[in-house]
Amino acid sequence: MSSAVETLSNGQFQTVYNVFSFALASMLFTALFLLVSQGRVLPRYRQALVVSATVCGIAAYHYFRIINSFNEGFAPTAIGGDYTLTPFGFNEAYRYVDWLLTVPLLLLETIAVLALPRATRASLLTKLIPASVLMIALGYPGEVAIDTLPKMLWGAASTIPFLYILYVLFVELTKSLGRQPAEVAASVKRLRILLIATWGVYPISYLFPVFGLDGADAFVLRQVGYSVADVLAKCLYGLVIYKIARMKSAADDPVFAEQEFEEAPSSEARATAAA
Amino acid sequence: MSSAVETLSNGQFQTVYNVFSFALASMLFTALFLLVSQGRVLPRYRQALVVSATVCGIAAYHYFRIINSFNEGFAPTAIGGDYTLTPFGFNEAYRYVDWLLTVPLLLLETIAVLALPRATRASLLTKLIPASVLMIALGYPGEVAIDTLPKMLWGAASTIPFLYILYVLFVELTKSLGRQPAEVAASVKRLRILLIATWGVYPISYLFPVFGLDGADAFVLRQVGYSVADVLAKCLYGLVIYKIARMKSAADDPVFAEQEFEEAPSSEARATAAA
Repeated sequence: MSSAVETLSNGQFQTVYNVFSFALASMLFTALFLLVSQGRVLPRYRQALVVSATVCGIAAYHYFRIINSFNEGFAPTAIGGDYTLTPFGFNEAYRYVDWLLTVPLLLLETIAVLALPRATRASLLTKLIPASVLMIALGYPGEVAIDTLPKMLWGAASTIPFLYILYVLFVELTKSLGRQPAEVAASVKRLRILLIATWGVYPISYLFPVFGLDGADAFVLRQVGYSVADVLAKCLYGLVIYKIARMKSAADDPVFAEQEFEEAPSSEARATAAA
Repeated sequence: MSSAVETLSNGQFQTVYNVFSFALASMLFTALFLLVSQGRVLPRYRQALVVSATVCGIAAYHYFRIINSFNEGFAPTAIGGDYTLTPFGFNEAYRYVDWLLTVPLLLLETIAVLALPRATRASLLTKLIPASVLMIALGYPGEVAIDTLPKMLWGAASTIPFLYILYVLFVELTKSLGRQPAEVAASVKRLRILLIATWGVYPISYLFPVFGLDGADAFVLRQVGYSVADVLAKCLYGLVIYKIARMKSAADDPVFAEQEFEEAPSSEARATAAA
């Protein structure tokens, strides 16, 4: 999939480049933060942190590739002049490769952090993961399609598993939220809102060509939109997962809560911890 | 071993490039995931995780080399145009170097995760590892052979150790599965099916030239086939090994199971853990 845009102004090129670099830095250091913070949650929540870190790490790798391709794909014509497309082109298909790997993992981390009973967890994942793979796989032919009709048909097909994912997250998952501490249940609700709000950016960008938005400005807007949505959907999402894991750790274990959250342990708590 | 293909369409080049990148990302992040997840299994299963991570790490290194060689080996002729072979050529022999290192290790991780008695483990590995080295070494002369007759003869020679490996895994290993928990025995059976299904792709790709499949489409299909088979045989395989190690850890140690899996530990479990 090569971009149809053949010329970018100097400012447009720099904007896209800087946004890609922002996304890469966010992904890489969120991944490292989540890895080195494993000791800040109880063991049963560490799997969720490792999966979140993996998601951000995979995305960092793909932004590295995207930046390289963008750098090779457009060359400056003069000092301060326009950038024109080179024979290497700009390969954006990495985004779909990235999503194919990271979207199922995002759903996995969402379920993992709740530490649900084994049967509930298995049942939710058996529904969510195949649906997310199907959603990405059905979206790709539409993204590369040039005509409007196949684009709309593949887009509609991809929307079906997306709606099913929302059903599972908003109806089936809700049944198990009653067992969670109140502030955890509230955070999970915010997490779902974040998921819908950020995932909503992708179909909008997808439909740009249908709305006739296909010039250089639309190209820049789409790249910025995808990048910002990626940072919110992976980094911010991962940090909310971390916050939930911290809250649940504190709720599960008073000694851990004292160690991690209280400014200075009381003498009674010290006595309890020592006992 | 240079590819005989001299021209790839833009779409063919991008497809192969993206599949290589997908394989590299999968290998690299599965390796990191398995390394940082060591604390998620009991010490006696960590060797299997380290070996699995090593397999994926070695494969990530080789995909990095394969991508570089592919990128140097084919150059674009015009914007959106074909890619033609350069004097550097495309070196694919890395695959055999990779397999020579990773296939014995894959068999080692399969046996390691079962934590069998020392004598059984040694007996199985003494059979499996030399056979796997022989299988790869005998396959290589056939891969580079241009004539059909030597290709078939080396291929047949390589099949003998392959069949012996299957015999050891399906007949000898089965005798020790009775000692495993039921869900572990079921997972090991699925693991063997995964091994046969993915390893079966390699001889099919190997025989492409014999079937007269040697154009650009066959080249693309072979690269995609090898890459997808590699991801399933190493990453998915490694993750199933991880899952088996988690199940066995939980079965071996109730306190570990409580720490890692249960939502909130009961007071009795806390008392047991403290005792």
